[in-house]
Amino acid sequence: MTNCIFCAIVAGTAPSVRVSETEVTYAFMDIAPGNDGHLLVIPKRHSTDLLDIDHQDLTAVTLEAQRIARAVVGDLDADGVNLLNCCGADAWQTVFHFHLHVIPRYADPDRDRLRLPWQPGVPGNRQVMTDFADRLSVALG
Amino acid sequence: MTNCIFCAIVAGTAPSVRVSETEVTYAFMDIAPGNDGHLLVIPKRHSTDLLDIDHQDLTAVTLEAQRIARAVVGDLDADGVNLLNCCGADAWQTVFHFHLHVIPRYADPDRDRLRLPWQPGVPGNRQVMTDFADRLSVALG
Repeated sequence: MTNCIFCAIVAGTAPSVRVSETEVTYAFMDIAPGNDGHLLVIPKRHSTDLLDIDHQDLTAVTLEAQRIARAVVGDLDADGVNLLNCCGADAWQTVFHFHLHVIPRYADPDRDRLRLPWQPGVPGNRQVMTDFADRLSVALG
Repeated sequence: MTNCIFCAIVAGTAPSVRVSETEVTYAFMDIAPGNDGHLLVIPKRHSTDLLDIDHQDLTAVTLEAQRIARAVVGDLDADGVNLLNCCGADAWQTVFHFHLHVIPRYADPDRDRLRLPWQPGVPGNRQVMTDFADRLSVALG
């Protein structure tokens, strides 16, 4: 897709620090990492976001992210890992080519810079939860 | 697995607010939601985390999360969605049965309670990035 920076990275016309590549996926370092080792896995074929990406590309990206997560924890010195997808501008998506964040986590608080994105341990309103689940169940059919 | 709360939820011996169910997956509302509509998709079969889960279950959970995300944005009133997996205690995992968070996001700042888990727009150290990518590439083979 023209004017897509991630398509340009896949095509080699924009620079990236490459991590891995398969027939379907490309993984490279995030240029503004939340933690050391923060990287992105993308499908080579353009899709806008989680709503748009087809099953084959989503599966390939997810399995490649798992393979990378295993190496990050098993072979490098991370103590855990987060996978994050941001779908839509209101969910922090800034590049509109599907990407899955793989973020190494470290037990050492001086090394780990991430903070939990929500208020921990606050029980939800039961009525709000059941109403949402009911509406969603109907929508899912 | 004994003493696993999510296995008990799947078995029906612990309560949950159900969203959807397939042969392989179960989705239910998070009891301490970050935002209204925050839910979890899990494999019915126990696996500890992203490192442990097999390809078939990971794929099924991911595709069900996508189906739910499409309904959350398309049929309910969310403006975006985040998928998050926490792998390991140092990555905020608190229940050690694999689960994928599906978190609806809202444009209205009075309604959306999530905050970006990292410092936005801080460029990474180039040497740290290339060193990490080099070591990871070797580990990935």
